[in-house]
Amino acid sequence: MNTKVEQLFQTFVENANKEDFETLETILNGLVQKQQGNYHTYLAAITNSNATPLENGSFQMTAPIQPLIENPLRIVHGGMTALLLDSTMGSMLAYKLPKDQAAVTVEMKVNYIKPGTGKELICISSVVHIGKQLCMAEGKVYNDKGTLIATGTGTFFIISRK
Amino acid sequence: MNTKVEQLFQTFVENANKEDFETLETILNGLVQKQQGNYHTYLAAITNSNATPLENGSFQMTAPIQPLIENPLRIVHGGMTALLLDSTMGSMLAYKLPKDQAAVTVEMKVNYIKPGTGKELICISSVVHIGKQLCMAEGKVYNDKGTLIATGTGTFFIISRK
Amino acid sequence: MNTKVEQLFQTFVENANKEDFETLETILNGLVQKQQGNYHTYLAAITNSNATPLENGSFQMTAPIQPLIENPLRIVHGGMTALLLDSTMGSMLAYKLPKDQAAVTVEMKVNYIKPGTGKELICISSVVHIGKQLCMAEGKVYNDKGTLIATGTGTFFIISRK
Amino acid sequence: MNTKVEQLFQTFVENANKEDFETLETILNGLVQKQQGNYHTYLAAITNSNATPLENGSFQMTAPIQPLIENPLRIVHGGMTALLLDSTMGSMLAYKLPKDQAAVTVEMKVNYIKPGTGKELICISSVVHIGKQLCMAEGKVYNDKGTLIATGTGTFFIISRK
Repeated sequence: MNTKVEQLFQTFVENANKEDFETLETILNGLVQKQQGNYHTYLAAITNSNATPLENGSFQMTAPIQPLIENPLRIVHGGMTALLLDSTMGSMLAYKLPKDQAAVTVEMKVNYIKPGTGKELICISSVVHIGKQLCMAEGKVYNDKGTLIATGTGTFFIISRK
Repeated sequence: MNTKVEQLFQTFVENANKEDFETLETILNGLVQKQQGNYHTYLAAITNSNATPLENGSFQMTAPIQPLIENPLRIVHGGMTALLLDSTMGSMLAYKLPKDQAAVTVEMKVNYIKPGTGKELICISSVVHIGKQLCMAEGKVYNDKGTLIATGTGTFFIISRK
Repeated sequence: MNTKVEQLFQTFVENANKEDFETLETILNGLVQKQQGNYHTYLAAITNSNATPLENGSFQMTAPIQPLIENPLRIVHGGMTALLLDSTMGSMLAYKLPKDQAAVTVEMKVNYIKPGTGKELICISSVVHIGKQLCMAEGKVYNDKGTLIATGTGTFFIISRK
Repeated sequence: MNTKVEQLFQTFVENANKEDFETLETILNGLVQKQQGNYHTYLAAITNSNATPLENGSFQMTAPIQPLIENPLRIVHGGMTALLLDSTMGSMLAYKLPKDQAAVTVEMKVNYIKPGTGKELICISSVVHIGKQLCMAEGKVYNDKGTLIATGTGTFFIISRK
């Protein structure tokens, strides 16, 4: 047993308020699911971000809105919205490109329309163009009530997977 | 004691590899420090992001590069770089604006220059313009070896704090 | 009669090749149409840019592709594509906002997809959000064959017209 | 003699007000200078845009503020500011890259800080990164009084000149 981790866990739990408990539960739940193979990255795991290709060729990724991803004003941190947009566009391209290729982000712009509030963020992205070396994608982030939270556009560079 | 959290913790720890242990330790360490008042948000806490105003009027924020913030290609997730840029520019503006004002992000663009590798991300931002209702800021993200990882520019809207 | 202008005209015409003649003809044709009230600005006049609201709420602006707007590589200058996007989004907002309001561009990003070649640029823009003080719009630029040349997104600030 | 051009010229001149005369004089002056080899493109010619490499490695481009480049609100058209930024960054890269290479714009974002008023626009750009296939540059546009009008960042793709 890792003593350091155990001690930190005990210290946190002893002083935890309701929000602290919920946040740690979310994180641990994600981490366990990552061990079970349900998430590829720690980030996706702790934010419970799930990706699905849609039938019309678009790609969807969702993440629950929770204290873990909020900024000091208690709305979703703009950086988390950016993370979700980048992940959704990047996952979509990885899904659409040949298996021996990957796409790395060259640039991304995010426009924030409404405060990120509600129960869930839903990001829907689509391909604008897939070229020989560059791709372009766009995405829109809504909350569970259908309010448009943000829009994003990004350029991606195709690399060979080793 | 919260049984659910305890069970998840035990499950994760029993199956954890070295990277899993280190990641959980980082997260718990940040969470405990948040309880002690060293971090304002869970996001800053678990990513160990620390902000400092610099003497020349710029603002600096650092975050260790660790598996927690990496993408499937094992480099820093572009969304985390965006998060750091948004946080640094936003914290800088909150620091420079009168206490009864806050700045929310209207838009941000990030250009990714080099893969995010190394030990630490160091983001340095500066004010381009502070107007009556809109501000503009820019930032650059380096790693601990001084390699430029990304640049960002953002527009912020000034709101009154309630 | 303005002697300076007359002399410059004679000098240019005496040394003009076919492309020079066509370019000057386009410019003069636009300038005359501006005098007749068909264009509001010199820029729209000389580039023969025409705006039309579409039935679905979108807005369209067209401009012929001609040597006047080409870069040294003999494709449409990226700045002209940006100009067309900014004009189309701005004209659309001016059309949609109350008569005593105008919208000035806060920021705009353009992604260039394919070289600007063909006979005509067709820009179609739509409103993403109209708020109390900020608006967001997006646009796509095609050529006459339907090839996507560029996409743009922009933020606009609402001001009162004097 | 080209009769059509001559007729358009006469029609315009007969109905021209002071601003019309000055605008046509500027345009014709630029066109004649292009014939004399002082400008490479019609756009640079009619806007009197001049580029100079600076000693510190930056690049400068200037353009007089004149009715030709104004929008309906009588300030510099945001698209012209974008054009100047794109031209300055692109010219800089063409100047810095090997002679058999050129750089085409992948994307550009412009932030507008202050209305474009005054006598002259001065754009100063610098290289952020030159890679094997992608370059990144940034630029700032001032007026003749040193007021910051706009800032821009762009990504460029290196191609081989035929």
